[in-house]
This record gives sequence, structure tokens and C-alpha cells, in this order.
Amino acid sequence: MTKFDVLTVGNAIVDIIARCDDGFIADNGIIKGAMNLIDAERAEFLYSRMGPALEASGGSAGNTAAGVANFGGRAAYFGKVADDQLGEIFTHDIRAQGVHFETKPLDRFPPTARSMIFVTEDGERSMNTYLGACVELGPEDVEPDVVADAKVTYFEGYLWDPPRAKDAIRECARIAHENRREMSMTLSDSFCVHRYRGEFLDLMRSGTIDIVFANRAEALALYETGDFEEALTKIGRDCKLAAVTMSEEGSIIVKGDTRIKVDAIEVSRITDTTGAGDLYAAGFLYGYTNGRSLADCGRLGSLAAGIVIEQIGPRPMISLADAGKKVGLL
Amino acid sequence: MTKFDVLTVGNAIVDIIARCDDGFIADNGIIKGAMNLIDAERAEFLYSRMGPALEASGGSAGNTAAGVANFGGRAAYFGKVADDQLGEIFTHDIRAQGVHFETKPLDRFPPTARSMIFVTEDGERSMNTYLGACVELGPEDVEPDVVADAKVTYFEGYLWDPPRAKDAIRECARIAHENRREMSMTLSDSFCVHRYRGEFLDLMRSGTIDIVFANRAEALALYETGDFEEALTKIGRDCKLAAVTMSEEGSIIVKGDTRIKVDAIEVSRITDTTGAGDLYAAGFLYGYTNGRSLADCGRLGSLAAGIVIEQIGPRPMISLADAGKKVGLL
Repeated sequence: MTKFDVLTVGNAIVDIIARCDDGFIADNGIIKGAMNLIDAERAEFLYSRMGPALEASGGSAGNTAAGVANFGGRAAYFGKVADDQLGEIFTHDIRAQGVHFETKPLDRFPPTARSMIFVTEDGERSMNTYLGACVELGPEDVEPDVVADAKVTYFEGYLWDPPRAKDAIRECARIAHENRREMSMTLSDSFCVHRYRGEFLDLMRSGTIDIVFANRAEALALYETGDFEEALTKIGRDCKLAAVTMSEEGSIIVKGDTRIKVDAIEVSRITDTTGAGDLYAAGFLYGYTNGRSLADCGRLGSLAAGIVIEQIGPRPMISLADAGKKVGLL
Repeated sequence: MTKFDVLTVGNAIVDIIARCDDGFIADNGIIKGAMNLIDAERAEFLYSRMGPALEASGGSAGNTAAGVANFGGRAAYFGKVADDQLGEIFTHDIRAQGVHFETKPLDRFPPTARSMIFVTEDGERSMNTYLGACVELGPEDVEPDVVADAKVTYFEGYLWDPPRAKDAIRECARIAHENRREMSMTLSDSFCVHRYRGEFLDLMRSGTIDIVFANRAEALALYETGDFEEALTKIGRDCKLAAVTMSEEGSIIVKGDTRIKVDAIEVSRITDTTGAGDLYAAGFLYGYTNGRSLADCGRLGSLAAGIVIEQIGPRPMISLADAGKKVGLL
């Protein structure tokens, strides 16, 4: 019996969320639908132009850990906040969801990371992330006993942006595999894939990663192709298991030559797509670490993703365990 | 031509919002539906028990100023935040809504005020407010030219809780009346009325206040009666104009012996009642300072209140000006 189902590692971020129109996105040089990395000066500039906002704890892998815990799973998280008010908010929210989170906060500077998320009419989110304290995450933040005691350690490709987080991930992978645990990652964002394609492929092909999550654009970017079929075939060869999401068309789980197609759930209204991929991974990994069939893992992913896009903010405000019971999946 | 339609003065607060069940409210000794004043220690205790939350700028009069501006009105605000991250968030949000807000922030301690708001199944909100930097608001924060140049200066009864804010209000009233402007207040909360009944009545009877906003419970508390009819008669005698809200039954505008009944709007779902009274006042005062009939002032109030209770958070995330046009009120 392990202590944790899923450990996730990522950039610990507080989201600052406001609606805007497409003109705003274009006028301000934001790449729509992407994670735009910004520095402190650009953050100040964009905030000065942003409308009234809401704040919510976010961070891709943080959302996934919160999602696993919301399903009733045992989750842990490594991520770096600063000892400031946004850091307190992040820490509160993830712990209040029942996630083990003990990464030592940075003493003051740089401040806790924030992402200004602009949500357009179509529900699409465009993120502008100032990494702040996240640049200090390193191997010294790895809690070896937590890694050893988690069935799956999952991290975000975004961790290749700060300088030393990848070293933390390599240390996690060493400990995990020594203890016969599995490693998993999300490719995070197609632009992120463009930045680190070679390293991501190497992580997969070297067996550092066992399970890969991607969306269609990321899978295409990974293999520099416009042919989705080709990307699926290649991803099936490059890792033991992959789950590739396709928005309203659901997802495809790829295990070698085997493919399992899973439908998306019906959504009454796409309010804000923030967290959709993170919550798909949460549902999938909750199912995976609790002995469900791969098809059911995908269905749990679809369920959680469908719920989070109906609300504002990246972490479902309702019980995912109850939602899963209601539809007969749990 | 004045520079501002409405100046509001209040406790500058960031809301921390989470759902909970009625058992949580009872177990933690929170008075349901009320504003519970708490100290730093109690704030820490309650936060440790609170579930994952969202943050949004709030503060009763702050919400009203934001609402007036959202209608297209010219609004200003006085309130005290600290020079910290929550203070930056508050400042950003109210300015991004187009409100003049230049009160000097407190240098660090105590921190910006926050209210932990627990929202139960029925949509009712129970607030737990740590006043923080608000205790430092005083007459030195009054911008005389803004008061002189605002048609109505509106403040919250809650300002009687911090020690020196009432001195700021008396200074505002002096300047406003010297410039033949009007003063307005909300009674804020029935428990607040219990704490300051004599002073509130004195503000009304001395003519320090021209226009009073109250809900039914506050009007009853003010006159220590269970007879709503009696309360309405007395409030009509004690001030020039009053608007008394009655939740789903709408509101009654009282001007001497004249009464105007205004219906509430149909609400699809009561998500979170936070800000309902504040937004009623916003709609009313926007109409009032823009030459609308009293009935239409009430209707604009009903509209804004109805919109804010359909969402989470105390400030409408849609355009009130557009909403008013859509129903033919603007």
C-alpha cells in the first residue's frame, strides 16, 4: 500500500482571471489559447490594461493534484511559492483540498507566480505567466519519501521553462523508478513543445516517462507534422501509454498499437476552458491509480474536464467524487 | 457639471469565497447571513477550516462604486488598503472598473482587510471580516475636492466599526452639504444597526444623511420593532428619502408619506447573494444622479442586484449598462 496515488510537480501559480474580447488579445500581442511567458515589466503592463479580475489558485500540475484529491484520491504536490499573500492563498487552497504540500516557500523574492488569464467569448483562455518564485524550484525540493510512496509522479512540460526544475524531475524519476513507480508528464502547450521538443522526446524514448498526456496540437508539434494519425502512431512507439485529448471530440488512449476512443461529455456552456487538460489528467490518473480500465480512466478524465470548463477558474468547485457516482463511473 | 455622480466610502476588503454546508456554519459559531467581525487569530482559525476558495475584490461601498461605474456612471471611492498583494488586487480591480481611487495605502501593517465569505446551498452568504488596514481610515483620507464634486457621497454603516472612519464621514458630510451635495448611507447589517442604532438615528435626524438604504431586517432593527409598516413610517419621517429592500419581494422607496413599490427581477438561480444590497444601491444611485424617476432608480437597483446574485462574487462580471439597455431601462 502506497501513501499517495499521485504526486504532481509543477509551477505553483495563482491565476488572475478576467474576460476580454478578441480585439484585446490582438491589440496586446497575446498568442490566443497559449501560455505566454512574461517578465515582471510585461506583467505590470498587462495588469494595468486588464479589467476587474477574480483570483484562484492554479498551476497546471497543481490543478491536477487538486482534481485527484477532489475525486477522493491521495495526492501530493511539489511547487515553489514565496512567503507572501498569494503564496498563502495557493498553499491554503491546495491543502484545503487535502493535497500534501510541504515545499518550503521562498523567503520573499521573487514573489509568488501569477498568470493573467484572459477568457474570450468562446471560453478560450490565453495565459500570461510571470514565473516569480517558481524559478527557484530545484532538486533540493524533492521529498524522496513522497516520490517513493506515490504510484505515479506526474509533472508539467512547463517545468522546462524555469532553470532548475528539470533537475528536480530527473531526481524524481530516479527515485520513482528505483521504487518501481511510474512517471508521467503532460506536454503542456504546443509552444512549450516547440521550445523543448528534443528534450521531451528524449524523456519519452529513454523511458524517463511512462505515461504522456497531450492535446492534439501538442502531439502534432512534438512530431512536427500536420498528420494526426502519424503523431498517434509515433507517440504509441515512444512511450508505454499516452492519452491525447481532442477538445469536444473526446480523447484517444494509445497503448502501443492499441487505441481506445473516449467521448467528451456534453457541456451546457463553455464558460472558461482553463484547467480542462489538467482535470482530464486528474480524472485519468485517479482512475489509473485506483485500478480502473483505461476506457474508464479516459471517461473520468472527460467528466472532470467537462465540469471545469462549465465554470470560471481551473479547479472544480463541486465534488468530482459525487459527480463520478452520479454518472455511475465511481 | 460635477466631476462625479457618486463617491462611496467604505472598508476596502478582498473577499475570500468558498462554499460550505449549514453544518459548517453552525459548528464554527458563524452567524448565518450576517457580517461577523473577527480578529487576526480567529481569521487564521477559520481560514484553516475553510475549503478551497476564490478571491474577489469586495467591500460593500467598493462594490457600489464599481456598480455605478459599470452602469456608466462617474464614481469615486475612499477606502484604506495596505501596500501588499491583496491591496494591489483591490486597487487594480476598482480602478480597472473606472473608479477614481487614490486613498493612500497603509505602509505594510496591518495588512489589507479580507472577509471570508461562506456561501451555503441556498445562496446565502455569511461573512467573517478581518478589518486589517481599514482601522486606519480617517479624516486625513478625505479628498475634499472629490466630495465637493460628487452629486452624492454614500457610505456604509460598517464604517462605525473602525475607530476613526466616522470622523472621515462627518468631514465628508460637512463638505458635501457646504457644496449643496447629498449624503447617503446604507445601514449595512442588522447586527451593525444594533451596535450603532443611536448614532445612525442621529445621523438621519440631524440631516447629516439625506438618503438611507436598508433591508427589511435592518429597518426593523433600527426601530426595534417587528412591525415593518411602523418601520417604514418612521424611516419616512427620519430622512428625506429611503429605499428598503425585501429580497425576492423587491423594494419600497419611501419619500415622506409617499411610497413606491418596485418588483425584484426574475432570477434563474440564486448562486451567491454577496453584493445584492450593494448593487441595489449602485443601480439606484446611478439612476438618481442621472435624473431618473424614483421608480426607475428602484428598477435599476433591482436589475443590478438580480444580476449579481446569479454569479459568484460581489461585482457583476457583465456590463450593467448593456443589461440596462437590454431591458429598456437605459
